[in-house]
Amino acid sequence: MLTRADCLAADARDALASFKQQFNIPQGVIYLDGNSLGAQPKAAMSRCAEVVSQEWGVGLIRSWNTAGWFELPGRLGNKLAKLIGAGEDEVVVTDTTSLNLFKALAAAVRIQQQDQPQRRIIVSERDNFPTDIYMIEGMIDLLQQGYELRLIDDALSLEQALTEDVAVVALSHVNYRTGAMYDMAAVTAQAHQRGALVIWDLAHAAGAVEVPLNAANADFAVGCTYKYLNGGPGSPAFIWVAARHQDRFWQPLSGWWGHNRPFAMADNYQPAHGIRRFLCGTQPITSMAMVECGLDVALQVDMADIRAKSLALTDLFIQLVEERCGQHPLTLITPREHGKRGSHVSYRHPQGFAVMQALIARGVIGDYREPEVLRFGVTPLYLGHADIWDAVEILRDILDSGSWDRPEFHQRASVT
Amino acid sequence: MLTRADCLAADARDALASFKQQFNIPQGVIYLDGNSLGAQPKAAMSRCAEVVSQEWGVGLIRSWNTAGWFELPGRLGNKLAKLIGAGEDEVVVTDTTSLNLFKALAAAVRIQQQDQPQRRIIVSERDNFPTDIYMIEGMIDLLQQGYELRLIDDALSLEQALTEDVAVVALSHVNYRTGAMYDMAAVTAQAHQRGALVIWDLAHAAGAVEVPLNAANADFAVGCTYKYLNGGPGSPAFIWVAARHQDRFWQPLSGWWGHNRPFAMADNYQPAHGIRRFLCGTQPITSMAMVECGLDVALQVDMADIRAKSLALTDLFIQLVEERCGQHPLTLITPREHGKRGSHVSYRHPQGFAVMQALIARGVIGDYREPEVLRFGVTPLYLGHADIWDAVEILRDILDSGSWDRPEFHQRASVT
Repeated sequence: MLTRADCLAADARDALASFKQQFNIPQGVIYLDGNSLGAQPKAAMSRCAEVVSQEWGVGLIRSWNTAGWFELPGRLGNKLAKLIGAGEDEVVVTDTTSLNLFKALAAAVRIQQQDQPQRRIIVSERDNFPTDIYMIEGMIDLLQQGYELRLIDDALSLEQALTEDVAVVALSHVNYRTGAMYDMAAVTAQAHQRGALVIWDLAHAAGAVEVPLNAANADFAVGCTYKYLNGGPGSPAFIWVAARHQDRFWQPLSGWWGHNRPFAMADNYQPAHGIRRFLCGTQPITSMAMVECGLDVALQVDMADIRAKSLALTDLFIQLVEERCGQHPLTLITPREHGKRGSHVSYRHPQGFAVMQALIARGVIGDYREPEVLRFGVTPLYLGHADIWDAVEILRDILDSGSWDRPEFHQRASVT
Repeated sequence: MLTRADCLAADARDALASFKQQFNIPQGVIYLDGNSLGAQPKAAMSRCAEVVSQEWGVGLIRSWNTAGWFELPGRLGNKLAKLIGAGEDEVVVTDTTSLNLFKALAAAVRIQQQDQPQRRIIVSERDNFPTDIYMIEGMIDLLQQGYELRLIDDALSLEQALTEDVAVVALSHVNYRTGAMYDMAAVTAQAHQRGALVIWDLAHAAGAVEVPLNAANADFAVGCTYKYLNGGPGSPAFIWVAARHQDRFWQPLSGWWGHNRPFAMADNYQPAHGIRRFLCGTQPITSMAMVECGLDVALQVDMADIRAKSLALTDLFIQLVEERCGQHPLTLITPREHGKRGSHVSYRHPQGFAVMQALIARGVIGDYREPEVLRFGVTPLYLGHADIWDAVEILRDILDSGSWDRPEFHQRASVT
């Protein structure tokens, strides 16, 4: 049986342990929800103050040039690219994940209309993050061109779903609920072999696992910066497009920032070459500028080291729950195999909602997802082995004592 | 002839003069570009620090509930509604103006497909803000349903453009370049009479002129919060939908935030009732929160008083330029008639670009728009009559001395 001393010893050996000092974590909190909203890099407040006081307050409109606002989506994109196996000028930080999915979907659909016009099926997964499915539904409804959504129930169903009328496959690299991870290279190859293009949603992958976009020969990817990348609440998302596809289609959210000559005020649209055509309207500069603080922390570490620590901590979490909470009805729904999971661990519990509220009241902040799912995000940059021990110990105490069964923990006021 | 003393006397009588104290304006700057990026309300820095340090840093994911992030788009929308003649639950602050135009356009097109399916023309104006035209082109290209864009050259052409196949008219209430303003009620009535729906872009109108959305029986409106509403660089935009249209169409950018039950994680999309269905993905909270600071300043004043001062200052600007710069080749392109102009004044000058750079170097910050246009935005909340005098005096000096004709003022490094 593991002990807390073992965990402290592991922390003492941990080469990433000092990175926690680059984040503000509130006193008394063990934060296991960095997969929903990442913690705050200490640099964020001063960066934000610089944007508001100096760039906006003093620079005013001049800051589009002097503070480099116009270059921000591409400059941050190039930094982010290094964390997801992408190249220079292949990523922009902009808009929201949902909107970027719409752009990627429109581009993929149009490329297929040119190359293989008979293909009218868009495949996704029933357990995909809901907004991804909603955006696909929205586009299908708008197009009125006979497109259909085909939802698979699990990874095994993909092979039979890939019929000759499939145009696009849109999947999340890491599942938001279970933490299950697809083999990006294998699934991309499988889809390509069957003539489909693939869009990867990296929301629960970017900054958490090694993402091999170019090595996997992927087509499109979107994702968010406010989870494992610690960009701040609702910080702008990103889109990656393989270089071979970038200039093939004029994506329909064609605002001024994606124009070839955005300040010429031309009266018709001409898309910029390359990834910049996936920009649309004016971006929220203050929120966007802080994205760099999170990226700059992550870029100090090798993603392989982040991944190794993530696997160590999730292994530890699973082992401790087995050892210490074994008699309680917790069902692990995250794959145990390293190659098949991301950086969070999820359990079903018949009273999952109340148990999570009791945990949060004790300072262990994870989150709850329908149905009955307790979700614990593991962020190697600001969590250690003893944190995992302490979190599981509080979970054990709540379960052993039954202290989750209080009226206030059953109230569903929560919106997230 | 007016004198500077006359201007100072007018400032002494000005009931809005004290509002300037609620903004940070840099020393030595006369800011005539609030129609591009509004100045910073003094409250913005502390609001921003509260979001970053407390709501994000300490509240973390809990702030979706405890700090009211989930309610922000609607709560700010309800404040903004009062400034544009809209009602409760008719406005949300979200995304960008370009994206909101796409949503409105999709909704308007779909409503017409149901009501008058033969209508396939979308009318706009050649001199509309380019991104509006680009977004229309993007949607037409995506739909592949035989829609066509018809661009009119001026307001007079609208009547003959309104043929029986026109589905939607998309116009800017105040033109970004000339400052010309449409009569919203008259044009809306004209379009309705001919069977078309109207989308108004209020980017250069909201916070600057009295906008009568409901009184004009308008259909849709979009606009930005970072110009006359002083929301901060790239702060999220807004969309207004007349109550009668809100539930008629599922707009295609159908992300989680517009879902009827956003946290049920349902596997198919069901649009929320009312204006909330025009939300899409997660919003940039830090940038959005600061929008409230600008709204809170504007809500202390009656829009009629803002408008009266705006007209007084733009009249003054025009008069002073005539009196003091009359011998120079400045051509006023802004309508003189009060009912036909917004809150900025524009001139063509053969060396407009260099003249504007020379002005900016002297602290008079306006902006330049192709072709040859000097644009001066007048923001009654933080500008006075003497500011206008001083700005025109510097313009006169630059023109009289020819000091604009230096190599550095001809360099087109500017991106805005």
